[in-house]
Amino acid sequence: MAKDNLTAVLHGIEDMRLEQRPIPNISPEEVLIAMDSVGICGSDVHYLTKGRIGHFVVTKPMVIGHESAGVVAKVGSKVKNLTVGDRVAIEPGVPCYKCDHCKQGSYNLCPDMVFCATPPYDGNLTRYYKHAADFCFKLPDHVTMEEGALLEPLSVGVHACKRAGVSLGSRVLILGAGPIGLVTLLVAQSMGATEILITDLVQHRLDIAKELGATHTLLLTSDETAEQVADRVRKAMGEDPDISIDCCGAESTTRLAIFATRAGGVVVIVGMGPPEMKLPLFNALAREVDIRGVFRYCNDYAAALALVASGKVKVKRLVTHHFDIQETQKAFQTARTGTGGAIKVMIHVQPRNTNNPVKF
Amino acid sequence: MAKDNLTAVLHGIEDMRLEQRPIPNISPEEVLIAMDSVGICGSDVHYLTKGRIGHFVVTKPMVIGHESAGVVAKVGSKVKNLTVGDRVAIEPGVPCYKCDHCKQGSYNLCPDMVFCATPPYDGNLTRYYKHAADFCFKLPDHVTMEEGALLEPLSVGVHACKRAGVSLGSRVLILGAGPIGLVTLLVAQSMGATEILITDLVQHRLDIAKELGATHTLLLTSDETAEQVADRVRKAMGEDPDISIDCCGAESTTRLAIFATRAGGVVVIVGMGPPEMKLPLFNALAREVDIRGVFRYCNDYAAALALVASGKVKVKRLVTHHFDIQETQKAFQTARTGTGGAIKVMIHVQPRNTNNPVKF
Amino acid sequence: MAKDNLTAVLHGIEDMRLEQRPIPNISPEEVLIAMDSVGICGSDVHYLTKGRIGHFVVTKPMVIGHESAGVVAKVGSKVKNLTVGDRVAIEPGVPCYKCDHCKQGSYNLCPDMVFCATPPYDGNLTRYYKHAADFCFKLPDHVTMEEGALLEPLSVGVHACKRAGVSLGSRVLILGAGPIGLVTLLVAQSMGATEILITDLVQHRLDIAKELGATHTLLLTSDETAEQVADRVRKAMGEDPDISIDCCGAESTTRLAIFATRAGGVVVIVGMGPPEMKLPLFNALAREVDIRGVFRYCNDYAAALALVASGKVKVKRLVTHHFDIQETQKAFQTARTGTGGAIKVMIHVQPRNTNNPVKF
Amino acid sequence: MAKDNLTAVLHGIEDMRLEQRPIPNISPEEVLIAMDSVGICGSDVHYLTKGRIGHFVVTKPMVIGHESAGVVAKVGSKVKNLTVGDRVAIEPGVPCYKCDHCKQGSYNLCPDMVFCATPPYDGNLTRYYKHAADFCFKLPDHVTMEEGALLEPLSVGVHACKRAGVSLGSRVLILGAGPIGLVTLLVAQSMGATEILITDLVQHRLDIAKELGATHTLLLTSDETAEQVADRVRKAMGEDPDISIDCCGAESTTRLAIFATRAGGVVVIVGMGPPEMKLPLFNALAREVDIRGVFRYCNDYAAALALVASGKVKVKRLVTHHFDIQETQKAFQTARTGTGGAIKVMIHVQPRNTNNPVKF
Repeated sequence: MAKDNLTAVLHGIEDMRLEQRPIPNISPEEVLIAMDSVGICGSDVHYLTKGRIGHFVVTKPMVIGHESAGVVAKVGSKVKNLTVGDRVAIEPGVPCYKCDHCKQGSYNLCPDMVFCATPPYDGNLTRYYKHAADFCFKLPDHVTMEEGALLEPLSVGVHACKRAGVSLGSRVLILGAGPIGLVTLLVAQSMGATEILITDLVQHRLDIAKELGATHTLLLTSDETAEQVADRVRKAMGEDPDISIDCCGAESTTRLAIFATRAGGVVVIVGMGPPEMKLPLFNALAREVDIRGVFRYCNDYAAALALVASGKVKVKRLVTHHFDIQETQKAFQTARTGTGGAIKVMIHVQPRNTNNPVKF
Repeated sequence: MAKDNLTAVLHGIEDMRLEQRPIPNISPEEVLIAMDSVGICGSDVHYLTKGRIGHFVVTKPMVIGHESAGVVAKVGSKVKNLTVGDRVAIEPGVPCYKCDHCKQGSYNLCPDMVFCATPPYDGNLTRYYKHAADFCFKLPDHVTMEEGALLEPLSVGVHACKRAGVSLGSRVLILGAGPIGLVTLLVAQSMGATEILITDLVQHRLDIAKELGATHTLLLTSDETAEQVADRVRKAMGEDPDISIDCCGAESTTRLAIFATRAGGVVVIVGMGPPEMKLPLFNALAREVDIRGVFRYCNDYAAALALVASGKVKVKRLVTHHFDIQETQKAFQTARTGTGGAIKVMIHVQPRNTNNPVKF
Repeated sequence: MAKDNLTAVLHGIEDMRLEQRPIPNISPEEVLIAMDSVGICGSDVHYLTKGRIGHFVVTKPMVIGHESAGVVAKVGSKVKNLTVGDRVAIEPGVPCYKCDHCKQGSYNLCPDMVFCATPPYDGNLTRYYKHAADFCFKLPDHVTMEEGALLEPLSVGVHACKRAGVSLGSRVLILGAGPIGLVTLLVAQSMGATEILITDLVQHRLDIAKELGATHTLLLTSDETAEQVADRVRKAMGEDPDISIDCCGAESTTRLAIFATRAGGVVVIVGMGPPEMKLPLFNALAREVDIRGVFRYCNDYAAALALVASGKVKVKRLVTHHFDIQETQKAFQTARTGTGGAIKVMIHVQPRNTNNPVKF
Repeated sequence: MAKDNLTAVLHGIEDMRLEQRPIPNISPEEVLIAMDSVGICGSDVHYLTKGRIGHFVVTKPMVIGHESAGVVAKVGSKVKNLTVGDRVAIEPGVPCYKCDHCKQGSYNLCPDMVFCATPPYDGNLTRYYKHAADFCFKLPDHVTMEEGALLEPLSVGVHACKRAGVSLGSRVLILGAGPIGLVTLLVAQSMGATEILITDLVQHRLDIAKELGATHTLLLTSDETAEQVADRVRKAMGEDPDISIDCCGAESTTRLAIFATRAGGVVVIVGMGPPEMKLPLFNALAREVDIRGVFRYCNDYAAALALVASGKVKVKRLVTHHFDIQETQKAFQTARTGTGGAIKVMIHVQPRNTNNPVKF
């Protein structure tokens, strides 16, 4: 096995370095993975520019990256589900398995979760990475490594739509047409939503949403009140949406979600917002509009993979830019500025198509 | 308004007659409908050939037909949701609205349900029919009258899939590729099922299922045990299905559904079976495989319409034969024998396309 | 039948008058009720002192009162469930029965709801009142008229605990030990909650809560932050509550409910709060703590009655004051000031025990 | 630590022996437990008399016993939740933690479950037993060791009532007043059921049920049809039960449960029945009466403990006989014959009250 283990390490605010790290040793229930593709997430950018998200603070050098796929290079002695050479998507969090949350089927809430690129745990924008075998999902030959990496944001969309209870004939409002808004759109469609209105401040993103199947798009301007926008939503959709999924998490979008949703409906909020907000909560309460957060995902990777493998959901369109691991700085620069209409920026640890039996 | 109200009346076993009936008067919350298209359901055929289904017995002449669509000809004084000329699909059962079942959102279980062509209540294979306005669903211009009539069986599929809890990535086994099996297939797809295996004794029906998107088909023969077929299902799908939906209701298919479904899964049974069956119930119980029946539908018409109107579900392929109301006898003959690969047989009370702004 | 129909009518802010009103005529599905007991609700007091609640504004004289029980004096021609002389509790809202909310089992969200003493509809603090027969619940002999009237607030507690998903072994935090907080306490106990901490600003109310079975009580002072109180709750209960039910609805209590509830838990808010609040919403979202409102109740009266009739829930203790209808002004004065440790103030339209086979 | 590890070992049908076994070594996440109390379950008796239950067959000597409590004697190096001296109830099954069932919160369905006294795994009627620390539940001082052992059958009742959806005001039919029927009764009460009818063939058991709070009892005779008994149930309860919980699992009781349950209700079957049954399934399906099995329990021990610790559920009454481990043969003889009105027979590995700070 190669000795090269080039790794992208965040040393502090605006201080990302490419450096060699030792190749990790695996325990009996782990696999070593030769990484292939790693997408850049908004949270990665946030750690780079702010050094923290909420109470998660980067206090020592941390490997970045968690939207990823690679090839199994070594398997632990007790691993049964994988063999060397298997192409896998990596679900990036490993819980304790034993607390109440884990036993009750909500391991995403496990307080002892070890999650890639969330301080103090390292991520996997690196050549060799080890992971719990039961959180690796074997990809069929026709699913590409990039699609494997995209299962991570897609799983967020799956979790959001399940939390929202999207069902046959649902009318859904999605706030924000960035990567999370777009995967949520794709998932909502595949769960039976028949009308989906998506909003954004950027027309280019709405154009992609339209292309991906949004039935309505609405370009927002920053000078309207939430009530005014809710009114425009109502007019565009014919009636109030059953479900609003806020993929921004700003005060303005959460306000909009509350005002827009029909009585008895659901507001789901995916994005990370400010610690305090001014909200018309009573409006939601008196109409029994439920408000639910989304924290990562839980038991959603298998469904995300099934959606992609079956062809029901096409995620490739989301990737607008591809870089080599040596170009990591440039990749992050693209992701943070949105240059060139960037939606999802992908970093390749191996040359593209090295591990794709069906070429991209 | 015309005086002609030609009507198909079942007088007893094998005794269907076309005769004139008075045009009904409407009450303030009803509409009069000039009927357009009426599909033939298995239950219609059953009443014709046996005179009864379970404890519902035809004891006096009964108008047949309940899968239907028409055009509003007159509206009651309190009706707000419809006007003359509206093209509507008719949900054929009107409950009491006031019992516990009605108030709790399961009006299909209302003991005082008045349901078309279920003794002692008349159906609507007739020129003029009156109905509660709130159980009429206005069709958009691009949805045809036949599609409107097909919302009835489609709603059965919607109800079955909701009862089954079909979700993203579900692996579904459907037993029977007749009209109900096929609509269930269409609905399961649109709710996110990614693998669907459908079985039948007739290859022609499986071919249509394949055309409609089934990922696997399995031709059954009558000499296999349920355990043997369950094993073939497992091999074909790679693992046990999460959900089995039995659209036959025979002892053999119910046995198969139980043996085939994975632990923690769901068996839903749509078809009407014999009063007593020999079943391996303990096999289901010890693996917590739940068994659920489906009785018609409830709050499902709107979703069925949304699926058709949005283009997510294409039901036209199900209609294999079209007849004029004067040919009712021949239509029933086709439906009961399956002549010419009959799946769904449609009877037109008006010449085809009379009421379709977008021609078929 | 008597001609006297003395009635408490709200003419405007601080303008309540006792006056004669005509005895109403009933339609075929209604009953006429000789009223017996009517409790005073916080909303009644609010209309008296402010003339409005949210967008419900008293613009013309309105009969007050909606927590009530009486005796059937006349039955409509189509009424089957009741006869003259039946003692009944009155569920005070009658929905349209035909909209989506009604058909889906959430009639409390019906936009055409006719609800007692909510403008523009009259309440029932009167001698003779007519009501839909299907919203009258016959009381067994051993349930008193006052208990019948108390089913109204008790149903709010039932709805709140159902919305909260209280279950076996739930640890519940209840904010506010007024009438709604106390009925919520009683219901939560009867659903299997094993630890219940209740808070209030008044020790006397906490003493009653303790007497009714609260496992912990916490006297709040107005100078603590929500985070500080959440910490005290945690210490008192040993761990974070699974469920918090805010029966005040103030910004401070909603903040507390969010901070106090464990990850994956539920915050239910019953009280009516201000239109805008400053909230730590992200704290709830990132821990998937769901926020749900409670609007009245729906399909809850039967359960409330079963709880009282079975002796599982004892509501009598809540009534601290009893007045005659002629003393309505004094009764409201007691309710609004809380004089004499008032919890629930009851107004008798008939002399007490007139209609109780088992004397109080 | 003592060297004595007297153990009850089942060598084959009717061949139970008391013999010495080595004291087990523990791994880092396990504890060693000095056993105190072990109840005899119907399954223990079944293995003794038949050597098998379904496809679980005793093919080599197996320690018997799984309803148990003891005192922690040694803790593994990674154990954080327990210390030496802690009194614990033992949840007797340890799953793999990593399969889909485990991750989705239904670990009772884990195919790799290691369950006490289910072949090939040893039980814990022994002096020293090791167990996964996270499946040990620390008992408060006032909960006795026998109560700790009783959490096992109580958890079955908890799981059954949760699967049944018992709620406020539920009317519940329980078939069988043996230990499982009685714990189900206790749990159903504590979840809000207001009417509970329990049946049995033995009056003595019904008397205990009445004493424990059943609102109705019905003595069955073996010559009635299920339809006839269903009719008696209806008359006794006033209306059909919402929920029927069959704690026998015989064909006759399952038939009764189906016929007796109201439309839209639930039949839960706890008992282990024959592999094949003749059932009126269509009767259930056409009325949407769901049929659900119960396999052990899952995430239910904590609730069971909370119910006992809070005093809401009193299980002591179930124990009718107490034996010393040396009297194991006699204890099993009592349990299998029901001599002396035996309900639950308890075996003490330590002299009674050795480990109860609050004496029994």
